[in-house]
Amino acid sequence: MRDFHDRRSIVPPPSAANAARAALSELRRTPLLVLILFVPAVILLEQVSPEAHTLLFFLSVAAIVPLAALLSRATEAVAAKLGDTLGALLNATLGNLTELVISLAALHAGQHLLVKASIAGAIVTNTLFMLGGAFLVGGLKHHLQEFNRVSARFQASLLFLATIAILVPSLISEVDRVPAGTFSQQLSLGLSLLLIAVYGLGMLFSLKTHRELFASGGHVDEDEKPWPLAVGIVVLVGVTLFVAMVSEIFVGSVQVAAQRLGMTPAFVGFIVVALVGGAAEMTTAFSAARANRLDLSVGIALGSAAQIALFVAPVLVLVSYFVGPEPMSLQFWPGAVAMMLIATMAATLLSNGGRAAWYAGVMALAVYAIFGLTLFLLPPSA
Amino acid sequence: MRDFHDRRSIVPPPSAANAARAALSELRRTPLLVLILFVPAVILLEQVSPEAHTLLFFLSVAAIVPLAALLSRATEAVAAKLGDTLGALLNATLGNLTELVISLAALHAGQHLLVKASIAGAIVTNTLFMLGGAFLVGGLKHHLQEFNRVSARFQASLLFLATIAILVPSLISEVDRVPAGTFSQQLSLGLSLLLIAVYGLGMLFSLKTHRELFASGGHVDEDEKPWPLAVGIVVLVGVTLFVAMVSEIFVGSVQVAAQRLGMTPAFVGFIVVALVGGAAEMTTAFSAARANRLDLSVGIALGSAAQIALFVAPVLVLVSYFVGPEPMSLQFWPGAVAMMLIATMAATLLSNGGRAAWYAGVMALAVYAIFGLTLFLLPPSA
Amino acid sequence: MRDFHDRRSIVPPPSAANAARAALSELRRTPLLVLILFVPAVILLEQVSPEAHTLLFFLSVAAIVPLAALLSRATEAVAAKLGDTLGALLNATLGNLTELVISLAALHAGQHLLVKASIAGAIVTNTLFMLGGAFLVGGLKHHLQEFNRVSARFQASLLFLATIAILVPSLISEVDRVPAGTFSQQLSLGLSLLLIAVYGLGMLFSLKTHRELFASGGHVDEDEKPWPLAVGIVVLVGVTLFVAMVSEIFVGSVQVAAQRLGMTPAFVGFIVVALVGGAAEMTTAFSAARANRLDLSVGIALGSAAQIALFVAPVLVLVSYFVGPEPMSLQFWPGAVAMMLIATMAATLLSNGGRAAWYAGVMALAVYAIFGLTLFLLPPSA
Repeated sequence: MRDFHDRRSIVPPPSAANAARAALSELRRTPLLVLILFVPAVILLEQVSPEAHTLLFFLSVAAIVPLAALLSRATEAVAAKLGDTLGALLNATLGNLTELVISLAALHAGQHLLVKASIAGAIVTNTLFMLGGAFLVGGLKHHLQEFNRVSARFQASLLFLATIAILVPSLISEVDRVPAGTFSQQLSLGLSLLLIAVYGLGMLFSLKTHRELFASGGHVDEDEKPWPLAVGIVVLVGVTLFVAMVSEIFVGSVQVAAQRLGMTPAFVGFIVVALVGGAAEMTTAFSAARANRLDLSVGIALGSAAQIALFVAPVLVLVSYFVGPEPMSLQFWPGAVAMMLIATMAATLLSNGGRAAWYAGVMALAVYAIFGLTLFLLPPSA
Repeated sequence: MRDFHDRRSIVPPPSAANAARAALSELRRTPLLVLILFVPAVILLEQVSPEAHTLLFFLSVAAIVPLAALLSRATEAVAAKLGDTLGALLNATLGNLTELVISLAALHAGQHLLVKASIAGAIVTNTLFMLGGAFLVGGLKHHLQEFNRVSARFQASLLFLATIAILVPSLISEVDRVPAGTFSQQLSLGLSLLLIAVYGLGMLFSLKTHRELFASGGHVDEDEKPWPLAVGIVVLVGVTLFVAMVSEIFVGSVQVAAQRLGMTPAFVGFIVVALVGGAAEMTTAFSAARANRLDLSVGIALGSAAQIALFVAPVLVLVSYFVGPEPMSLQFWPGAVAMMLIATMAATLLSNGGRAAWYAGVMALAVYAIFGLTLFLLPPSA
Repeated sequence: MRDFHDRRSIVPPPSAANAARAALSELRRTPLLVLILFVPAVILLEQVSPEAHTLLFFLSVAAIVPLAALLSRATEAVAAKLGDTLGALLNATLGNLTELVISLAALHAGQHLLVKASIAGAIVTNTLFMLGGAFLVGGLKHHLQEFNRVSARFQASLLFLATIAILVPSLISEVDRVPAGTFSQQLSLGLSLLLIAVYGLGMLFSLKTHRELFASGGHVDEDEKPWPLAVGIVVLVGVTLFVAMVSEIFVGSVQVAAQRLGMTPAFVGFIVVALVGGAAEMTTAFSAARANRLDLSVGIALGSAAQIALFVAPVLVLVSYFVGPEPMSLQFWPGAVAMMLIATMAATLLSNGGRAAWYAGVMALAVYAIFGLTLFLLPPSA
C-alpha cells in the first residue's frame, strides 16, 4: 500500500503500550482484519496435524490476507513519522513486503518454480486484475474517470522497460535454445545488480529530482489517526515475523494441496499466491477508484508491478546465493514470459489515454480470466 | 458495412413487391453489382462440370463480391427501420455475415485450416489493407486527414485486447510445446464463451452506456433512398442463402484450384478469402476516406477486425460442435499468430496520433505486401 | 549526421586546394579528429605484421571513428551546396555511409553473420544507446526537455514498421521451423526490392510532399563556415576510400581478436561495430541534447535506425548477389529479432510523450546494457 501523502500530525505520540489498542481500533475500521484469527489457528494446526495439507493451505491463505493489511498499515505509519522523503523511500521499499516474505519462504524450501511463478503472477495480477478491477469498480460508479496521463504514461514506461529487462535472458535462451547453466546464472547475477541500481536511480528520480511529476492527490481516508512511531515499528516487526511463519506453512502445504484440489502448480503460483499477497493493495486501489481517485489506483497497480520486476525479483536472485539449496536464475518458463509481456502491453495501452470507463476494466479482467483459465487447464507436466 | 446514423425517413414505406425495382436501382448506383451475373453462372457450372475447379474458384470469387455488397446494403436497410439501438445491434452483429457464411461452409467441409486462415486473414486484411488503403486513397486527395483520436484509440485497444485473447492459447501451447488435444479443446470452448460474453458487454458499452463516444459523423451518401423493411428482410434472407450456396462451391474448389494455380493454401485462406469476404466493407471504407470522413473508415476497419476476433471466431468454435466432422479449437499456427500480433500493433500505432497522410497508408500496405509475399513463397509443407 | 537546414552562404567558394586547410581547421574544432593519426598507423601495421590481429583490431576501431566524423562533415558540406531537396536527399542517402562500407567489407569477406549482427546492432544501438544517451546527457543539464511529439511519433512509426518488415521472414521461418534455403532467398530478394521502394516513397514524403512536418529547428553550431563544394567532394571520395581500406583490415582482424579478447562474435558485431560506425552521429546527437535541441537528437537516432532497416539492409542483400561468395538473406538469428523488436518498442514508448528527463535515458541505457551483458556472456556456440 503506497501512500505518498504527509501524515505528520500534531497529536502527541502515545506510548508503545498503546499498540494493542491501536490494533483493536484498526480492526474495527477494517472488518477484513477479523481474519487475523486464522493466524493462531493455522500455527496451531500445523503443530497438531502437519499432514492436513489442504486445510493448512486454506487457513494460511486466510491468515496472510489480514497480516498483509496490517503490514502495509504499519509501513505507512512508520513512513509518516519519518518525514516525506525517507518515508516515501520506506513505503516504496516495503510496499511488496508480503510478496517478498512469501517468496523467501519458497526460496528457503528450494521451490524456485514457485518463486518465479509468484513473481510473474504478481506482475500480471497487478497490471490486469488490480488495474482492471479498479477501472471496473470505479466505472460502475462514475461515467468517465480521468487520471494523470503524464504520470501514468511514465509509470507504464518504467514498468514496460522493467519487464523487458527481466525477460531478455529468458527470451534469448528460449529462442536460441541455449542450455541453461553457467551462462544463465552469471547473466542473472549481473542483471540483478543492474536492475537494483536502476531501481535505486528510479527512487532518486521519483522522490528527489522530479518528485513533482509523481505528486499524489491526497488522502483516501482523511479522518484516520496516525499510529505513533513505536507502535508502527513494533507492529511492523511483529507482523513480518508472523507472515514469515504462516508463509512457511503455506509453502509447505501448497503443492500437496494443489494436487488434491486439482489445481496445477502454475495456477497456484500465478493466481492464488499473487491474489493473496496483493490483497491489501487491491483493497486500497479499489476503494480509491470508487472515490474517483483513479490516479492513486493506477499508481499503486503499475508502481507495485514495476517494483516487483525491478527490486523484488533481483533481490530474490541475490538472496538465493545465501538461502536455499542452490542459486536461482532470472530465467522464466516461456509461457510466463508471454503473459508478462502481454500484461505489460495491455497496461500501457489502457493507461495511455488518461481516461477510463467500465469496459476497459472488463477487457483487462477478461485477459486475466483467459490467463487463469489457461493455467488452470494446463497439463501439470508442462 | 457499419453505419450508425439514423435513417428513419418520412417517405411512406413501399410494398414488398418493390424489392426487384430497388435492387435494380441499387445496381445502377453500384456498378460492382453487375458481377451478380456470376452467381447463376457459377451455380450452373457446378451442376454441369463439378471438376472444373479452377474456373469454379474464379467464378465463385467473382460472385461473392456483389452478394456481399447486397448483404451489407440489406443489413443497413433493415437496421435503419429498427430504430437506433436495435438497428445498430443488428448492423454490428451481421457486419461480417459474409465471412461467417464462408467460414461455416468451410467448417461444414471439415476444413479447419481454411477456417482459421480466413479468420486470421480477415483480421490482418482489415487492419493493414483496409486501414492502409483508406489512408492512401484519402491521403492522395487530402494533404493531412484528422480523425477522432479518442474513438480510434478505444477501438484499437479493444482490437488489441481481443487479438491477445484469441492468441493466448496458441502462444502458450507453442512456447511450451504442449501437445494439442483435450487441453486445447477445453480451453477453446471456455475462451469462446468468455469472448462472446465480453463482446456482448462491448455492445452494451458502445450502444447503450457510452454511445456518445462512438457517435459517427453522418452519412456517406446523403441522397440514397432507404429500402422498405420488407424488401430489406427478403433481400437479407435471400442473399444469405445465395452466399451460402456459392460459398459451398468456393470451399469445394479452392484447394484443387490453389494447387493448380501454384498458390499455397495459407495464401488462399489469408489473402484471397479475406479480400473477397471484405470487398463490400472496403468499398465503403475507401470512399469514406476520399470524402475526408476518415472516422468512418477507421471505425469500419478496426471495428470489423475486432468483431471477427471477439464474435465470429468464438461462434465458429461453438458451431463446430454441431457442424462438421469434429470440434474446432482456437489454436492457430504460429506464423498466423505473429502476423495477427504485428497487424494489431501496426494498427494501434497508426491510429494513435489521430492524423493520417498518404505515407502511413504506404507503410501499412507494405507490411501487408510483405505478409502476402511470405505466404505466397512459403513451402506448402509448412 | 543528418542536418536538414539550409547552408547556402554568401561566402565566395574557395579553390579545391583549400581542402587541406579546411581539414586542419576542422581538426582544431573537433579534437576527436586527432585519432586520424591511427589511419596511417593501422595501414602501415597491416603491411608490416598482418598477424597482429588484436592490435590491428584496436587500431582500426580507433581509425574509423575520425573517418566517420569527416565523412558526415563532407556529406553535409556537399549537401549544403546542392540546394535544399537534393542536399537533403544526399544527406539521407549517405547518412549511414560508414556502416554501409564496413558491411560491404564484411560481405566481401563472406562474413554474413557479421553483416547481419552489425545491421541488427546498428538498429539497437541507435534506438537505445543514442536515444538513451541523448536523454541522459540532455536531462543532466535540463530538468525537462520537450521535443516535437508529432514528428517523433511519425519517425517511430516508420521505424517500427521498417523493423517489422525486416523481421517478418525471420519470425515466420523461426516459428514454423521452415528450413532456410530457396524460400528464404527468394523472399529476401523480394522484400529488399519492396523495402527500397518504400524507402524511396518515404524520401518523396519527407523531402517533398510533407516536408513541413519534418522541419528541423535550426543549426547546432551556427558559426561554422561551410566547405566549398570541390573540397567536400574530394574529402567525401577520399575518406570513403580510407574507410574501405580500414574496414577491410577491421573485418580481417575482428574474429581472431575477439576470440583472443574473450568476446563473442555476436558481441563484437552487435555492440563494437555499431558503436564504432555510429560514433560521429552520436557526437552530434549528444551535443544537440545538451544544447536543448532534443528534436534533432531524436531525429538523428530514429531516422538513422529507420534508414538502416529500410535502405542499408536491403541494399546489402542486393549487393550480395555481386560481391562475396554467395547471396545473403534477410533472415536474422532469433535473439537478434527479439532485441530489434524490444528496442523498437522501447523507442516508440520513450518518444511517444514528447517529453524527456534523465531517468528515461537511464532506462534505455539499462536495456542496452542488458543486451550487451547477454551478448557478452552468450556461449560462442550459440
